[in-house]
Amino acid sequence: MTKELLATNDIAAIKSALAEMNPVDVAEEFDELDDSASVVKLFRVLPKDTAADVFAYLSHDRQQEIVSAIKDKEVARIIDDLFLDDAVDFIEEMPAFVVKRVLSNLPPEKRDAINHFLKYPENSAGSIMTIEYIDLKAHLTVAETFEKIRAEGVDKETIYTCYVIDAARRLVGTVSVRTLLLSLPTDTIGEIMERSIISATTYDDKETLANDFRRYGLLAMPVVDNEKRLVGIVTFDDVMTVQEEEATEDFELMAAMSPSDEPYLKTSVLKLTQNRILWLMLLMLSATVTGSIISGFEDALAVMPALVAFIPMLMDTGGNAGSQSSTLIIRGMALDEIRLSDVFRVLWKEVRVSLLCGGALAAVNFLRIVLLQHEPTVALAVSLAILATVVLAKTVGCLLPMGAKLLRLDPAVMASPVITTVVDAGALLLFFAFAKGLLGV
Amino acid sequence: MTKELLATNDIAAIKSALAEMNPVDVAEEFDELDDSASVVKLFRVLPKDTAADVFAYLSHDRQQEIVSAIKDKEVARIIDDLFLDDAVDFIEEMPAFVVKRVLSNLPPEKRDAINHFLKYPENSAGSIMTIEYIDLKAHLTVAETFEKIRAEGVDKETIYTCYVIDAARRLVGTVSVRTLLLSLPTDTIGEIMERSIISATTYDDKETLANDFRRYGLLAMPVVDNEKRLVGIVTFDDVMTVQEEEATEDFELMAAMSPSDEPYLKTSVLKLTQNRILWLMLLMLSATVTGSIISGFEDALAVMPALVAFIPMLMDTGGNAGSQSSTLIIRGMALDEIRLSDVFRVLWKEVRVSLLCGGALAAVNFLRIVLLQHEPTVALAVSLAILATVVLAKTVGCLLPMGAKLLRLDPAVMASPVITTVVDAGALLLFFAFAKGLLGV
Repeated sequence: MTKELLATNDIAAIKSALAEMNPVDVAEEFDELDDSASVVKLFRVLPKDTAADVFAYLSHDRQQEIVSAIKDKEVARIIDDLFLDDAVDFIEEMPAFVVKRVLSNLPPEKRDAINHFLKYPENSAGSIMTIEYIDLKAHLTVAETFEKIRAEGVDKETIYTCYVIDAARRLVGTVSVRTLLLSLPTDTIGEIMERSIISATTYDDKETLANDFRRYGLLAMPVVDNEKRLVGIVTFDDVMTVQEEEATEDFELMAAMSPSDEPYLKTSVLKLTQNRILWLMLLMLSATVTGSIISGFEDALAVMPALVAFIPMLMDTGGNAGSQSSTLIIRGMALDEIRLSDVFRVLWKEVRVSLLCGGALAAVNFLRIVLLQHEPTVALAVSLAILATVVLAKTVGCLLPMGAKLLRLDPAVMASPVITTVVDAGALLLFFAFAKGLLGV
Repeated sequence: MTKELLATNDIAAIKSALAEMNPVDVAEEFDELDDSASVVKLFRVLPKDTAADVFAYLSHDRQQEIVSAIKDKEVARIIDDLFLDDAVDFIEEMPAFVVKRVLSNLPPEKRDAINHFLKYPENSAGSIMTIEYIDLKAHLTVAETFEKIRAEGVDKETIYTCYVIDAARRLVGTVSVRTLLLSLPTDTIGEIMERSIISATTYDDKETLANDFRRYGLLAMPVVDNEKRLVGIVTFDDVMTVQEEEATEDFELMAAMSPSDEPYLKTSVLKLTQNRILWLMLLMLSATVTGSIISGFEDALAVMPALVAFIPMLMDTGGNAGSQSSTLIIRGMALDEIRLSDVFRVLWKEVRVSLLCGGALAAVNFLRIVLLQHEPTVALAVSLAILATVVLAKTVGCLLPMGAKLLRLDPAVMASPVITTVVDAGALLLFFAFAKGLLGV
């Protein structure tokens, strides 16, 4: 829409179109533009008070185009207008020369805050927290608190929970704006504050945080240092994307890819190839083990070549049965529903499920071979192999992800491709064992 | 913790332990108890004002145990204290006799509201919305609005956004409490309200809602009927779980299981088997097609039995290459990053990626066979088959999920197990074609 308007150079019309839109949607308009000149032109048309909002939602490429084209003073003003966590996020993604130019033009206290934040490890609570919160002392009254919010509130990322600290800045309680609104103006914060606090420390992993946000339905969570002093807050919008990102990462790992945080359509062909080739290569080479097992039984296959036809079905069924189990266990652990201490409960469940599933598959398969090929002994050998393969696959499928967790690896790496490769070999060994025993090949 | 305390019968100690805890954690204590008597005993100890909060977080089994053990009046009081969306959720899960008993003891207006909500289709905005919101008229002043919030606010699930309606109850704007706090007491709502509104209709799917919540970082979203009249709001805590649930559903579908919303450890062995067996059976029977392809080439294999050993590697590599593509496309569509109209961009990307990946795999494989087995012609046939299989797998892997979406099916059903089965057959046909052409078998 804006693209055509931009071409007309009708600035008034563009301004009024933009005024109606949510900053998220405005940022998307930038993605539609093809050249830097239009990007910069559109950015200059934005009202001053929404420019920083829109900037925070732009892709890193667009941010860099704009920063390269406008004056130092302008850059500094935009970064200064960003919430601190967005500013840190931006700085982290820019090349060094842009970072230097931006930081040298910021007011010293903002620069110090950003430098401090850049020190926290990636994915820690410290790296995604913001310092724009409202802190209160317990002796304040509700009326005084409203004055303070009115005076300070404009710059605060969330004002709906205020944090109560003591003289040493230790967090002692929280007060929601809801409680403030429903209290008497003369009540003191100490009387109405909530003393049971759910908080994080600066080094907590953001996945842990996301689970707590979901569990308690939080809007924001205070972050404290080792001495329990309040150092920042994490807000729910940052955590909503964490959950999506973690799920996407698990999806990618489980399909044997290196995780990437770029959207698919914005990832280059080379980068996509790079994310996929390593696992494909590794799994291809592992699958040659299965090939050598077959070579080892070449004599048996020479006697009864019809047996080869059952190999794909056995391998696929083993792979599918195993990935069902591994997926449920990996997902259950990601959502903190399954812990390492549950290993025996999980194993016992999977053994029973695999006997039921394997039994049903074996029965159907037995009937199919007997009815279509009139070979009851072959049918028996294949069916026993299927039953044993399903039990093996589901046992491996639940144990491997839990083993990965025990070794502090991401359980999602032990997903279907790895399990398929492991189970393939087992399925073939079982199949040839039954074939030898029953058919004497 | 509570379990031991409960055994001591020290009611005062239990009460003070509970008073310190978050309702979510109290609800978890209930899960630790083994018998209904303890459950009911613990529930009776809860302070009256948190009983409904805790009740909303209990599992459906625990809810039913409590409802069966306490008096009608008590049940009615608890349900009446629940937020409407939690009450509807509870009623939906209870057996009919419990529902009847609960509904007949509720005040008529609550009963009507619940009955009305039960009519919305599952997973629609209507079915998860609540009517506990604050509505305003544009002529009110900020001071009057604060009076209204103070008077009504206790029962409202979220008071941080107020909804402005006209005389016909049509939604005309929103005002955040933040804006209210920062405005002058004499400003009118009409002057300060936000007119660009992001809203849902009652029949919108909750997955669509979740995407909008994430996109715009919302706390709550108004729900309107066909005449644009405000009928309810959906709050972010309900949507946070939607995202998790949708991701879990996709994980399960992609591993060839019927989705289930019970946590793994709470699902019975029979139910787990039931969720898995249908897909396993279907895929096992489809895999026999691959078997018949092998049977069709029995003569070729009799001439050169060593070829069989390459089958597992080809099948596994095809399956892995295909599931990489399908996973990225399915996930991209779930997050609304890839649309049906992107089909040609996606296909073009996948073809190039598959040529690069397939080429690298073919080269490594060629070298391996030449160096270890000194069979350059076999190496060439196998390597060409790998390249062709990877291209086929990635093409099928990106097109099948998009095709499913076009047919209004869940793209996640077209994930690795289905693709493996399809690609297996193609891989074998390609392999035998190259073998025949190059080796003359």
